[in-house]
Order: sequence, then C-alpha cells, then structure tokens
Amino acid sequence: MKKFLNAPADFVDEMLEGIYAAHPDVTYTNDDKRCYVTAHPKKGKVGIATGGGSGHLPLFLGYVGDGMLDGCAVGGVFQSPSSDQMYEVTKYIDQGAGVLYIYGNYTGDIINFDMAAEMADVDGIRVRSVVGNDDAASSIVGEEHKRRGVAGIFFVYKAAGAAAAEGLDLDEVVRLADKARLNTRTIGVALSSCVVPEVGHATFSIGDDEMEIGMGIHGEPGISRKKLAPADAVVDEMMERIFGEQDYGAGGEVAVLVNGLGGTPREELYILYRRVSQLFAERSVKVRHVWIGEFATAMEMAGASISVLKLDGELARLMAAPARTPFFTHVER
Amino acid sequence: MKKFLNAPADFVDEMLEGIYAAHPDVTYTNDDKRCYVTAHPKKGKVGIATGGGSGHLPLFLGYVGDGMLDGCAVGGVFQSPSSDQMYEVTKYIDQGAGVLYIYGNYTGDIINFDMAAEMADVDGIRVRSVVGNDDAASSIVGEEHKRRGVAGIFFVYKAAGAAAAEGLDLDEVVRLADKARLNTRTIGVALSSCVVPEVGHATFSIGDDEMEIGMGIHGEPGISRKKLAPADAVVDEMMERIFGEQDYGAGGEVAVLVNGLGGTPREELYILYRRVSQLFAERSVKVRHVWIGEFATAMEMAGASISVLKLDGELARLMAAPARTPFFTHVER
Repeated sequence: MKKFLNAPADFVDEMLEGIYAAHPDVTYTNDDKRCYVTAHPKKGKVGIATGGGSGHLPLFLGYVGDGMLDGCAVGGVFQSPSSDQMYEVTKYIDQGAGVLYIYGNYTGDIINFDMAAEMADVDGIRVRSVVGNDDAASSIVGEEHKRRGVAGIFFVYKAAGAAAAEGLDLDEVVRLADKARLNTRTIGVALSSCVVPEVGHATFSIGDDEMEIGMGIHGEPGISRKKLAPADAVVDEMMERIFGEQDYGAGGEVAVLVNGLGGTPREELYILYRRVSQLFAERSVKVRHVWIGEFATAMEMAGASISVLKLDGELARLMAAPARTPFFTHVER
Repeated sequence: MKKFLNAPADFVDEMLEGIYAAHPDVTYTNDDKRCYVTAHPKKGKVGIATGGGSGHLPLFLGYVGDGMLDGCAVGGVFQSPSSDQMYEVTKYIDQGAGVLYIYGNYTGDIINFDMAAEMADVDGIRVRSVVGNDDAASSIVGEEHKRRGVAGIFFVYKAAGAAAAEGLDLDEVVRLADKARLNTRTIGVALSSCVVPEVGHATFSIGDDEMEIGMGIHGEPGISRKKLAPADAVVDEMMERIFGEQDYGAGGEVAVLVNGLGGTPREELYILYRRVSQLFAERSVKVRHVWIGEFATAMEMAGASISVLKLDGELARLMAAPARTPFFTHVER
C-alpha cells in the first residue's frame, strides 16, 4: 500500500486536521471533527448539508463554502456518517430558513439522513432532501430511483448553492436542486482499483489491458468490462448512453463535467473532453459551462467520468454564479 | 499502459485541442497549437512567458491567465519546446513593456529560451529571464545554480504575475520574481513511477514498500531510497532539509504549497500538511498562505512535494492578489 498515512485508523481524522489547519473558512461543530461546517453561516439563508463516506475528495466536504454548501457529515472511508453527525450539522447550519440535504443514493446515507431529518423536525427545523442518482450505468431507464449518485451531484450542489445564495426560499431551492438532479446524467469508466487504507489492498482487480465502463466510485460493478480502447472510442461509447437518455436538441445548451477518479492525469481528461466537445458540436449543442479535473474521486483509482447537465435559462444562471470553497472556486470572466 | 489516449504521438496536440475547446480565455499564435497564449493580452503590461515539457499539468500552461502568465511554449512530454515556439509566444505577448521568461533549470529549456531572447532582441523586444531552481534535493548548498526547477516555480509565477498585473515595470517584476525564486525551497518524495505515452512503460521501478526522497518530476534520482515511513516521519525528514536551508525566524511568515505528483489522493496531501502545520507552529512561524492539490505533476506518479516561500511584506501582498486561469483561481475572502 503506497500511501502517505500514519495509523490507517487515523486516516480520516488526520486528513480533517490538515484541512482545518489549512482552511480557516471551515470548522466543526459539537466538538466532533466529522461535523464539518462553514465558519461563516449566513442568517436567513437556506442551509444546505451533504455527507457521505471519505475517500472521494473534493467530494463531499470540499463543496462547503460560499455559493455552495454549508455543512457536511463526514464518514469513514467509503462509510456513511451517523445520523447524529448529520443532525448536529443540521442544527448548526439552520439559520431560520430550513435545511436541504443533498447526498448520493446509497442505503446507509438514506437511512441516516432520514433519521437526522426526523430529529431536526422535533426541533422545529424544516428539512427537505434531494438524493443524487445521476449514474446512468447503475440501472436501466425507468428504474432511475435505483441509480447511484456519483460526480454529477456537483451540478446539484452548484444549482442549489447558487439558489440559496440568491436568497431563494427552501421550496425554490429544492425545486432548482431537483431540476438539476433530473437533468444530469453521468457515466464512468475505471482503469484500476483503489486501496482503502484500513483494508490495505486493492478493492478489485482489473487486467492490465482492461477497462470497466459504468463502475461506481467504490468499485461497484459496471455494465461491461472489455479491452481498453482508444480514447475517442471510449468517449463515443460513454456518450452514446448519455445521448440515448437525454435529448439536448439542436441549439440546446449543456454543462459538462469531465471528472478524474484520482489516478488519471489531467492531460488525459482533456483528451477525453476533446472528443466530448466534438460530439456536442456535431449535434449543434452548445457547451456553455465545462469543468475538467478531479471533482469526485475514488482515492487513487485510475479512470474518469463524464457528467452532462441539460441547461435551461435558470440552470445556466445558477451555474454561472460565483462560488468559493477551499476546494472549488468559480469566477466568470 | 493504462491511459486514455488515441495514438501516443498525438497525446500533446489532442490534449491541447481539448484545452482550447474548453477554455476560450486561451488561444495560440503562429498557427501552432504549442504556442499557447492568453486571448486577452493587456496593452502596456509586462508580458510573462513560460515553457517546458508536457506531462506536468497544471504546469506549465495552466498558469496562463489573469494575474499570472501571458504565454507558454509547450513541448512534447518531458521535452523542451523549440526556440522558435518561444520566440513566437514572445512576439505575441510583448505589449510594449518587455517580456519576462520564467522557466525551470533544465539544459534544453535554457538553450532554447536564451536563443528566443536573442531573436526577440533583434526585434527590439526587451527580454529578461528568471530560472527556477527550487529543488533543494538536487544539489548541495553553495551549488544552487545546479538545482532543478520543480513545483516551487508556482510562487515565482504568482509573484511575477501579480506584480505585472499591478502595472510594475520589467525591472520591478524581475526583482520580485527573483526574490520569490531565492526565497523558495522544495523537496519531493516519489512512491511510484510515471509512464511516458510514447514509451509505454514505467520510467523507473521502485519497490512496493519503498519511497525515494528528492526525486525529480521526470524521475531524476533523489537523495535517498528507503522503506516508506509513516507520513509524519516522511514530512519530518523533508522539512528538516528545508529548515536547514532557510531560517524563517519566530514570528516569521511563509507560504506553503503541498503538491501532489499525480497519483496521490488529495486526502494524503492533507495528512502531510497536518504535520507541516505542526512543525511551523512549533517554530512560531505563521503559514499565511497555503495551497494544497496538484500544481506540478509527473503524470500518474504517486508522490508529493512540499514547497515553502519565505514571505516579507511585498511577497505576501503578491501572494494575496487575485488570479484566474483555466487551472488556477485565487480569490481572498
């Protein structure tokens, strides 16, 4: 296991200590480092919380900051945080306008966030949830409720965060977050495994000349394992699935996220985007916003995902809004 | 070779096509994609150019943008660009106030940049050069001129870019860039090799339980290869070398860059920074600015480097200035 760490059991807490040391804009509540919150809550603003397992930086906590989220319950590597942690984050970030939970569609997270919402309800805090399920590889059309949440949750965060920063109320923020969710599709491809620190060996094995399309960010099985193809052919296969599910229409507009899973160099993400941009150009679809880099990783896993958000006027406005977190800054020119 | 690419020979140009498709703020001159320049040159501002081999994103071209650099000559993977390409970039970015070259201390780059400066001189363009040599592992004290330029060149870019954006003249920009250069020390540690696309196999081999302290970003030999130690011990060894070269003084201030070489997850970089911050706190040195992420990579190499810039008032001011490139955005809160 080639990792920089001390005791594997301290991996998450020491990572958090490094983050708090580096970034005074974030802090924690309830004396629990895993109850990660903004240091600058804004009175009257809808609070937005997320949460999930560690090992996916900048997901999840990296999106806490101005124009994005207000808090994050931090779990162990690939493990759900507890309902108590989510509840503590909720209490801290509620500024009188209610709280929206945005998290990925994983059983443990659903159970715990639902329980936290009930606890908050007793305190009179209004909570609503939007559950990310953008991974088009993880179930067939018609069973989208079974789909995992992966990198496309970034668009839901961005939409909701910008809406809340505009001062919209909870119902409006939920409406816009949910529109972003419904308009997002992601498909991933993995080239290598990751190593969970407390496990110490690869989560799965994959041949030296193989790729797995549709693999999840914890190594969940994908839809096909085959010989690694040229980059353009890989993108064509991935995008065929996305184009099969959403009609962007000639003259339509999209936002695109090309996300590295951790071990893939940025150079290769741009080679993938080159082909993505060609495919949209062929369809006369305008890519109005594009983000390329690491947005939702699986530690050192080599691979990438492509997420597409179908835009309308209000989603385009929300994507363009400024944002500033320790891990993500957006400023339109 | 587990890479997303088409023909290995097209790796760099297809990467560039992806970058130009994604980021309208950058373009190229002389009909050569490898002559990478800002789309928004500013009349009367000192132009700043860099250049070097590909495979290090966001180095080198990623720092072209507002508050940073104006152009970059792009070489093949780990290869110097040509003097002609540097000259073409120079002509484009000269806006009447002269041009500063900032690049790393590698023989090919020195020869070609010096030749480009001579060609520009014939055109009446005043050119000066600052050559990054921050890698404390690559020669002994007293022979700093032999040291390689690695991630710490980021501080030189940031200082010079901010100074030029303030409207300072070429001599002042050179003075500040050179102060940043002299005040910067970097030390790296590699855990795995990278793979050059046209070569197709690992550049070097390193045992499953080994690390190499001081290795360069192309796999140049370091100062010691030994068993991978706990993260805190690795940082202690790296920082001992930096503390041995620069006296930050109790009450002094520094900027720190914890840089991932490509294959190391962000989580681990924060575990490294946790210890770095403890060591500075023990010495009563204030870390005024900190950047943690991938700033100068060696493709998929696992490993990290730590760079420290000793600050004074004017360097602190330049670090705090806003910057916005397709790969790097800085906004103070």
